[in-house]
Amino acid sequence: MIATPAALTRYHEMVQSEMRAAFPDVDLPIYDMARYGLGWLDEQGRPASASGKGARAALTMLGAGAISDDPATVKRAACGAAAVEIVHNFSLVHDDVQDGDVERRGRPTVWKIWGVAQAINTGDLMRELADAALRRAIGYRATAESVLEAVRRLNRATMLMIEGQYLDLTFEQRTDVSVDEYLAMVERKTGAMMGVSLSIGATLAGASAAQADALDRAGTRLGRCFQMRDDWLGIWADPDALGKPTDADIRRRKKSYPILYALGHAPTVARRELVDLYRPDLSVDGADMPDEQVDWVHSLLGEIGADRATDEAARTEYEAFRDELESAHPRGEAVADLDALAIFTLERDR
Amino acid sequence: MIATPAALTRYHEMVQSEMRAAFPDVDLPIYDMARYGLGWLDEQGRPASASGKGARAALTMLGAGAISDDPATVKRAACGAAAVEIVHNFSLVHDDVQDGDVERRGRPTVWKIWGVAQAINTGDLMRELADAALRRAIGYRATAESVLEAVRRLNRATMLMIEGQYLDLTFEQRTDVSVDEYLAMVERKTGAMMGVSLSIGATLAGASAAQADALDRAGTRLGRCFQMRDDWLGIWADPDALGKPTDADIRRRKKSYPILYALGHAPTVARRELVDLYRPDLSVDGADMPDEQVDWVHSLLGEIGADRATDEAARTEYEAFRDELESAHPRGEAVADLDALAIFTLERDR
Repeated sequence: MIATPAALTRYHEMVQSEMRAAFPDVDLPIYDMARYGLGWLDEQGRPASASGKGARAALTMLGAGAISDDPATVKRAACGAAAVEIVHNFSLVHDDVQDGDVERRGRPTVWKIWGVAQAINTGDLMRELADAALRRAIGYRATAESVLEAVRRLNRATMLMIEGQYLDLTFEQRTDVSVDEYLAMVERKTGAMMGVSLSIGATLAGASAAQADALDRAGTRLGRCFQMRDDWLGIWADPDALGKPTDADIRRRKKSYPILYALGHAPTVARRELVDLYRPDLSVDGADMPDEQVDWVHSLLGEIGADRATDEAARTEYEAFRDELESAHPRGEAVADLDALAIFTLERDR
Repeated sequence: MIATPAALTRYHEMVQSEMRAAFPDVDLPIYDMARYGLGWLDEQGRPASASGKGARAALTMLGAGAISDDPATVKRAACGAAAVEIVHNFSLVHDDVQDGDVERRGRPTVWKIWGVAQAINTGDLMRELADAALRRAIGYRATAESVLEAVRRLNRATMLMIEGQYLDLTFEQRTDVSVDEYLAMVERKTGAMMGVSLSIGATLAGASAAQADALDRAGTRLGRCFQMRDDWLGIWADPDALGKPTDADIRRRKKSYPILYALGHAPTVARRELVDLYRPDLSVDGADMPDEQVDWVHSLLGEIGADRATDEAARTEYEAFRDELESAHPRGEAVADLDALAIFTLERDR
């Protein structure tokens, strides 16, 4: 293990420091809106602590560790990690506008506070800040070639993420989405950014293109695994662990993996009823599903084994992650760390 | 003159070709939404011809010409030109959402057709496509250093443009915006992208950092000149030449340069009346100004010489453009072309 708790704390601080350094010395409120989006400030501009878990940043640092143990590469990797974290948060700011979500991480969303127009601006600005963070690797003597390759990978992954968001929005208007279509969407919306998290760290640490590509595929699989587990938790989590009511996803009519599985596997009559309950016009008007119907969906999922199927799908992605990881020929110590992170992704209870 | 009509046509075709080549081979409707935003397709996905004037692309090609006459640099510059054109159009797609504008270049805006959520996505995607276009310069044997420097310049200019859009949106809520504040906003929102249009071409053609910086400042001045002329045309243009009614900007309560000049120079009583007519709540509810008041504003602007003041402000920017251009030590032939473009910017009647 190289990722001791002390090392992870040190990595986290390095990444946060690179994220902060990406901000220009400009005193305009829109930069504070971006800092709010990153969880550093509250609405009034006072210091806050509401960042995400930093899973992508951790992947980037471990991706670099999979290639090299040269301490000089750690600082370069921190620039890549800062970039993926900022892109991830940029996507959340725009997603919240697109979905009309009023709360994230227990706080009002950017658009809820500053309006849709400035939230679009804030997200746009964050995307630019991400590239500024990544380019700081030059200051730690990364070659122009490796930074440009990292820029290319981030650019490609962001494009895939936007494709995924496009698909996700269209799926809300449909009741005939197959499990395969859903996985293709998840691979883009969640997988691509986790893939580049791993590969950008590796690239900045001197990986070959083949190694970085293998790590990209590994991270993409981990992203799919992450989403399967998320979908499982959205229905079957222990509500105390999750911090929100079980069945939340059913109540919100979220067409997650278990529901799509049910739409493909439920007996005809139940299937028809399910299609009707998940009609797009019902989701769009935003009203929650009544308790009685939530209970019925929950029972149906149990009867057809959707919980087990979702868990198995997540495990399949984990196995694929392991295979792709091996094919990158990573350093031995890094494998244990990455595996621990993947096992955590697969078995977390919140 | 190197920019003969034949050369300009050839440049235009090269730039369009690089823009098209930036699109990945992915068959998803969101790419057609981006093509619509670029004016290449209509709503139904049929070929259309509704692109902008390509002023920024022309600047990029001339910026490269200011540094080198090596034909190999022309293709690299076309990649830079493609990138700035795509970024410019990305900003229009998001601006139209932010301003609630339903029409652009005589066609419905992206959000008007596909909704706000997908318009945000489309703009986000176009920003990524711009970087993909720029990176194609590698294929024309640009060095990694020069492409990374071009990426940096585009990144910085886009950040400034977003700052400008932030300021513009806040100005709509205020009646106390000074001419200087307005110019600082214009410098970012319009100037920065015209600055990088010039400097990115020069960078890809092998300019020194000092030359590229001087061209950046020149382009920024030209952007300010462009906006001053735009503001002049929005009130005093010949309606037949402009293709829309004169006074359009007064009717829409647009706080353009002549109005801000009047707010600073009108006698007290008239000033108070003007402040009242441009109250933010009146602009926000979107109703046009009544004819009688439009006529009154028009007369007031004439009495205090706002038309002459606006024209003089534009000429001052043009002179500053010339000075900055000289300081870049450009090749002689390119100066004539750039000057012709600047004179056109200053004196165009639409």
